[in-house]
Amino acid sequence: MVNGIERPLDVLNNAKGKEVLVQLKNNRQMVGTLLAFDIHINIVLDNAKEIVENDSKRSVGLTFLRGDTIIFISPASMANK
Amino acid sequence: MVNGIERPLDVLNNAKGKEVLVQLKNNRQMVGTLLAFDIHINIVLDNAKEIVENDSKRSVGLTFLRGDTIIFISPASMANK
Amino acid sequence: MVNGIERPLDVLNNAKGKEVLVQLKNNRQMVGTLLAFDIHINIVLDNAKEIVENDSKRSVGLTFLRGDTIIFISPASMANK
Amino acid sequence: MVNGIERPLDVLNNAKGKEVLVQLKNNRQMVGTLLAFDIHINIVLDNAKEIVENDSKRSVGLTFLRGDTIIFISPASMANK
Amino acid sequence: MVNGIERPLDVLNNAKGKEVLVQLKNNRQMVGTLLAFDIHINIVLDNAKEIVENDSKRSVGLTFLRGDTIIFISPASMANK
Amino acid sequence: MVNGIERPLDVLNNAKGKEVLVQLKNNRQMVGTLLAFDIHINIVLDNAKEIVENDSKRSVGLTFLRGDTIIFISPASMANK
Amino acid sequence: MVNGIERPLDVLNNAKGKEVLVQLKNNRQMVGTLLAFDIHINIVLDNAKEIVENDSKRSVGLTFLRGDTIIFISPASMANK
Repeated sequence: MVNGIERPLDVLNNAKGKEVLVQLKNNRQMVGTLLAFDIHINIVLDNAKEIVENDSKRSVGLTFLRGDTIIFISPASMANK
Repeated sequence: MVNGIERPLDVLNNAKGKEVLVQLKNNRQMVGTLLAFDIHINIVLDNAKEIVENDSKRSVGLTFLRGDTIIFISPASMANK
Repeated sequence: MVNGIERPLDVLNNAKGKEVLVQLKNNRQMVGTLLAFDIHINIVLDNAKEIVENDSKRSVGLTFLRGDTIIFISPASMANK
Repeated sequence: MVNGIERPLDVLNNAKGKEVLVQLKNNRQMVGTLLAFDIHINIVLDNAKEIVENDSKRSVGLTFLRGDTIIFISPASMANK
Repeated sequence: MVNGIERPLDVLNNAKGKEVLVQLKNNRQMVGTLLAFDIHINIVLDNAKEIVENDSKRSVGLTFLRGDTIIFISPASMANK
Repeated sequence: MVNGIERPLDVLNNAKGKEVLVQLKNNRQMVGTLLAFDIHINIVLDNAKEIVENDSKRSVGLTFLRGDTIIFISPASMANK
Repeated sequence: MVNGIERPLDVLNNAKGKEVLVQLKNNRQMVGTLLAFDIHINIVLDNAKEIVENDSKRSVGLTFLRGDTIIFISPASMANK
């Protein structure tokens, strides 16, 4: 159970400094540490790794992600692929 | 029959804390417990499971979903696949 | 002939409580009873059934539909497929 | 020659009560009598018929069409297919 | 050389009453006489002809075109295909 | 090195009257002389030539381009294909 | 670890004058020196090189990129492909 989630952005606020899984449109995913976000859901990940079609990985380090390409952001540590 | 639905967001308000089926664009679906939503239809699901093309499942736990990728949200408990 | 349609939303207002056919992008359709709508054309259907490519049906019960996936909404009872 | 067209919406205003051809994205077309429109180019057609890929027809009667799926609206009676 | 073009819409203003080529998304083109436009680049063409993939032609007469399907509008008389 | 670029639109302002390469969505490109632009990145090119998939060319002369189909605009004279 | 990132745009501000990797929609990438950006994430790159599908390269020099085609911007020097 999760407490203290009143608005959707509360989840992102709680996830600051933690690892998140970001699902992008076009079957791209990124994992990394959430550093910042804004109301457009633009986000910044540190130590980001890009995963395309579950296969290839590419380290892109510190990364600015535009919100409109994001499907979901999952900060749950129990996420398994 | 459903009572007390004046505006579309009333359905989401009534579904808080309950399991919902979320149909996303590109044949993705998610099921999970609706924790929060805003006027952009950004939503938060707890214990979310992703279903792609009716086959694969992936548990993503607590998840923030951007509204613009959502086709429909169905809180009906009688939904059968 | 139809009377009293001054603005497009008048059609939706008149269709409240009646069955409608909703054509979505990507060849999805839904039929159900229109309960509510807003200016974004977000709508709520009760007893909704989803039809994909004229074949499969899935009952999804009470459903919130985001407006930007909707092509047309037809409340006409004489609609034949 | 056409007189009295100062702004694009004048064409739609003049076409009220007349048959129009509506070209939608994804190769769909509709023909029907234009009853109403708004600044988002949401429109209402009466006695609407849907034509997909120039072949199949489906009568959908009174229909609300969302503006963002519309490519063009042609009220010209001399339109030939 | 072209004089008096301070803002992009000046080109459309100068083209009123003249033939224009309109390139739409999805490989559609239209030619016709530009009668009107607004800031959304919604336009009205008279005597419009639709050209799909450089082949088929369809006369659609007077036509209202929604701006968001337009790639470019070329009023130049020296346009050759 | 480039001096005096404080904001992105400064690049377009400096490029007025010069040849630019415009990359559009869907593998279209245009080259031409930049005459005007606005904050929506609607632009006007003079002596525009359209290049599709690096092959075919079509002279379209004076052309109004809607901003939302533009990926990038490159005024650099050293651009090589 | 990264310090001083309060808002997403702080990352872009820190990257001014440095090389960045820009992932665009449709499998295009650009590398270049970030000169400027605005709140729409329109950016200017100097000495930009375009990479399509990891293969072809095209030098486009000074380039204005529209924000809505950008997926992510990575200023990290340790990015490896």
